[in-house]
Amino acid sequence: MSITIRAAVPEDVDDILQLIVDLATYEKEPESVKATPELLRKNLFETPYAHALLAFVENTEKPVGLALYFFNYSTWTGRPGLYLEDLYVKPECRGTGLGKALFAELGKIAQEKNCARLDWSVLKWNQPSIDFYEKVLEATPMSEWMGMRLEETGIESLKRFAL
Amino acid sequence: MSITIRAAVPEDVDDILQLIVDLATYEKEPESVKATPELLRKNLFETPYAHALLAFVENTEKPVGLALYFFNYSTWTGRPGLYLEDLYVKPECRGTGLGKALFAELGKIAQEKNCARLDWSVLKWNQPSIDFYEKVLEATPMSEWMGMRLEETGIESLKRFAL
Repeated sequence: MSITIRAAVPEDVDDILQLIVDLATYEKEPESVKATPELLRKNLFETPYAHALLAFVENTEKPVGLALYFFNYSTWTGRPGLYLEDLYVKPECRGTGLGKALFAELGKIAQEKNCARLDWSVLKWNQPSIDFYEKVLEATPMSEWMGMRLEETGIESLKRFAL
Repeated sequence: MSITIRAAVPEDVDDILQLIVDLATYEKEPESVKATPELLRKNLFETPYAHALLAFVENTEKPVGLALYFFNYSTWTGRPGLYLEDLYVKPECRGTGLGKALFAELGKIAQEKNCARLDWSVLKWNQPSIDFYEKVLEATPMSEWMGMRLEETGIESLKRFAL
């Protein structure tokens, strides 16, 4: 099977959104997707907070894989890092090397930007993915760290601490 | 005690680096800091992958607090988020509201940029900070997610999966 990967362009926003919804459905939270084609156009292309790669297989018009990433920064390394926010491969295309090829393309971009790290997150119940990341990619689990989050209500209430 | 907070400028890189080293020492990993003044100048100001806020108290020339952050992106919200990479307050200035004031300033920036979330990470052994985040800021622990990481050797070896 012939695989091609290319950077997404603004005309891809509907296809990107469909892959985002497919991934959220796999993650058991399809109703969590609030993104719209307009929000993707604005935040991926007009003010590019993130970037997307799309994967195609021969004889299909629609993309079958997505890698959405942005650049972060580490004060320990002093250098940028590449953070993979979403990785998705359609079920019928798994086991073809397509996910690995997306990781290879991300690694190439990370090296071009002099990134010290490639980071991502995984749901703790997703053992097949964890096995792939640890055994195939030889990634290190960041098990000593825990994420913390404030959403809009919590951000608004930080005002009580203002000087 | 009078507290002021301002955005860092290129002339602050030496002071920023000192606060980064102080934080890494508190995190029991002082030798992990590979950042240099030159790397900070390049990646915070020339190509700004991240941004820094500095906090001062009256009658001190040197900053006593640092918040270093960047913008990330969520495909579920479709909007940018603010990620707090480093937060540090010198021990002699803790309990003065300075950390809370830094969070308030970050919240203001998050709202200006239409961010849906304010995220950060905490070491799991750092119970005093976790208590502050959960009880005072009412932040949500992202305990169902685990970070994964590749460093430079791992990124290089992704080449074996290239198309």
